[in-house]
Amino acid sequence: MSKVAEFDAVGGPEQLKLVEREIPAPGAGEVQVDIKAAGLNRAELMFLAGQYLVEPVFPAKIGMEGAGVVTAVGANVTDYKIGDEVSIAPNINVGAEGAMAERCNFSALSLHPKPSNVSFVEAATFWMAYPTAYGGLVQAGGLRDGAGQSAVITAASSSVGLAAIQVTHAHGAKAIATTRTATKAQELLDAGADHVITTDGLTPQEFGDQVRAVTDGKGFDVAFDPVAGPMVGLLAEAASNDATIVGYGFLSGNMPELPLFALMRKGSYITGFHVAFHLLMQPERMKVASAHLLPRWQDGTYKATINKTFAFADVAKAYEHLSSNTQFGKIVVEMD
Amino acid sequence: MSKVAEFDAVGGPEQLKLVEREIPAPGAGEVQVDIKAAGLNRAELMFLAGQYLVEPVFPAKIGMEGAGVVTAVGANVTDYKIGDEVSIAPNINVGAEGAMAERCNFSALSLHPKPSNVSFVEAATFWMAYPTAYGGLVQAGGLRDGAGQSAVITAASSSVGLAAIQVTHAHGAKAIATTRTATKAQELLDAGADHVITTDGLTPQEFGDQVRAVTDGKGFDVAFDPVAGPMVGLLAEAASNDATIVGYGFLSGNMPELPLFALMRKGSYITGFHVAFHLLMQPERMKVASAHLLPRWQDGTYKATINKTFAFADVAKAYEHLSSNTQFGKIVVEMD
Repeated sequence: MSKVAEFDAVGGPEQLKLVEREIPAPGAGEVQVDIKAAGLNRAELMFLAGQYLVEPVFPAKIGMEGAGVVTAVGANVTDYKIGDEVSIAPNINVGAEGAMAERCNFSALSLHPKPSNVSFVEAATFWMAYPTAYGGLVQAGGLRDGAGQSAVITAASSSVGLAAIQVTHAHGAKAIATTRTATKAQELLDAGADHVITTDGLTPQEFGDQVRAVTDGKGFDVAFDPVAGPMVGLLAEAASNDATIVGYGFLSGNMPELPLFALMRKGSYITGFHVAFHLLMQPERMKVASAHLLPRWQDGTYKATINKTFAFADVAKAYEHLSSNTQFGKIVVEMD
Repeated sequence: MSKVAEFDAVGGPEQLKLVEREIPAPGAGEVQVDIKAAGLNRAELMFLAGQYLVEPVFPAKIGMEGAGVVTAVGANVTDYKIGDEVSIAPNINVGAEGAMAERCNFSALSLHPKPSNVSFVEAATFWMAYPTAYGGLVQAGGLRDGAGQSAVITAASSSVGLAAIQVTHAHGAKAIATTRTATKAQELLDAGADHVITTDGLTPQEFGDQVRAVTDGKGFDVAFDPVAGPMVGLLAEAASNDATIVGYGFLSGNMPELPLFALMRKGSYITGFHVAFHLLMQPERMKVASAHLLPRWQDGTYKATINKTFAFADVAKAYEHLSSNTQFGKIVVEMD
């Protein structure tokens, strides 16, 4: 028997409960993992609320990202063996599999080998944030090594935002972080942001002026945005000619107008990025991304900011903390 | 004295009148041209209606594109001499200069040499349509020579749309033309479109299905769109992964929502293009574009479809014909 976090109805973190389940032997293409740590992602709150790309089928498991030790291997799995330390990210079969559990079977496609010199907590916080930041900024957004560019990173205090600051710096570019209020501004500077802009109450023109003031009057080269809504209008005004705005989320819940006139004036681009569709499920792109990411993970250049760890018994509290929006960095649950 | 088309109040073509004006000697950087033919552009109707980027100052001249013979040259002009045959496009000082006149002074920056083997009518119909099509499809949209791509060209019966079909073919790509109703479908096929889709009443899904049906299930690689409004939602659903939608106009008068979810699902891009900002005023890009366009203009590969020519006395009727939206190709006014 194994403790598993599940929910039987859509709602908030209060829906989550720990139940004892018999875990079957892994099927073909599956690997069974004893989970040591699991990182929280905002998409899980949306899945819990019934607002994600995939509808939950009850009872539904939760947890897209984790790390642990392989305890059994199904047929047709050649890349992993019992005792291997692995990361899980992203869990492809959302709801049927979940990293918020002591033990679970996962598709082998969801696993990555864990470097021996990183902890399980770190291994449970890398594979969503850093590939999202790298794929979004570099592969979709056109950030180039040593090109003297600048990147605007919105909602920068999230785990992806903080990873994006590091990826920006690793390419020799300037990181301009945005946050709604001044509360997290100092933490963002401490985390390495070159400039912080607080966006509450700014008009597009004012935001554009602030970005131009720190980019030699030019505007940003890449923007990396999970907010959408009014943020897109701000970014369109702050873009340099030929800039790319990469949207990877919809936190505001508001769909903006297409800023066509700004695009026509500047020639800038808007695109969308989803880490699973455009990177993790694309072996050729993943090869390029891993060649950049893995050495920098192992040498400590890329290191997640851990906001807080919770015991597995407190998994609902961990998600409540995530929904409070007061955290800075990654929230992690550790299994006993 | 010279006959000049002018207007003293915003409105429709009925505001245009022919007046006799003394044309002063060209100033520094200016060239005086005896105009032989002038091509009509939709932007001129918007300028006349007070809905263009630039507000008219009365009395305002009209006409962004023409061709004629140099009759005088101002100070600091070295590229042109009396007797040179030239195209004017685009007239930079909209309203203060206008190609709908027997004679006018233009900034030398607005002129292009006319090849000797093309007529004045052809020389008055090339420099708006073909650079717009080339810059939009190739430089902004990523159409590549011989890459087996496909382009969706909306509002395809305009002079730019017809040029876009030719530019698409010159790159070995498939041209999928759209038109609102079946009226112009056969003409579009005759003009070289590989496929024609009539869009009135189509849902985004239905439009996407029709585009996928003629692109091996893949969707288009580039879309070239002056319509905006609901057309953007249709295009977002028909895009292949990594496709680029290039918006170069706002004919619908409706600003669409940003199709963020389609962009995130596909990884496709939306950008804007303006022929003056992103090509004609950018010498480096213009050099590349001219190297592609000029030989194909001179050898007849690129040839505008002339819908109808009007006498200069009927200039108001020419603009009425343009606003009727029944034309197919370019409308031209010929001076006596």
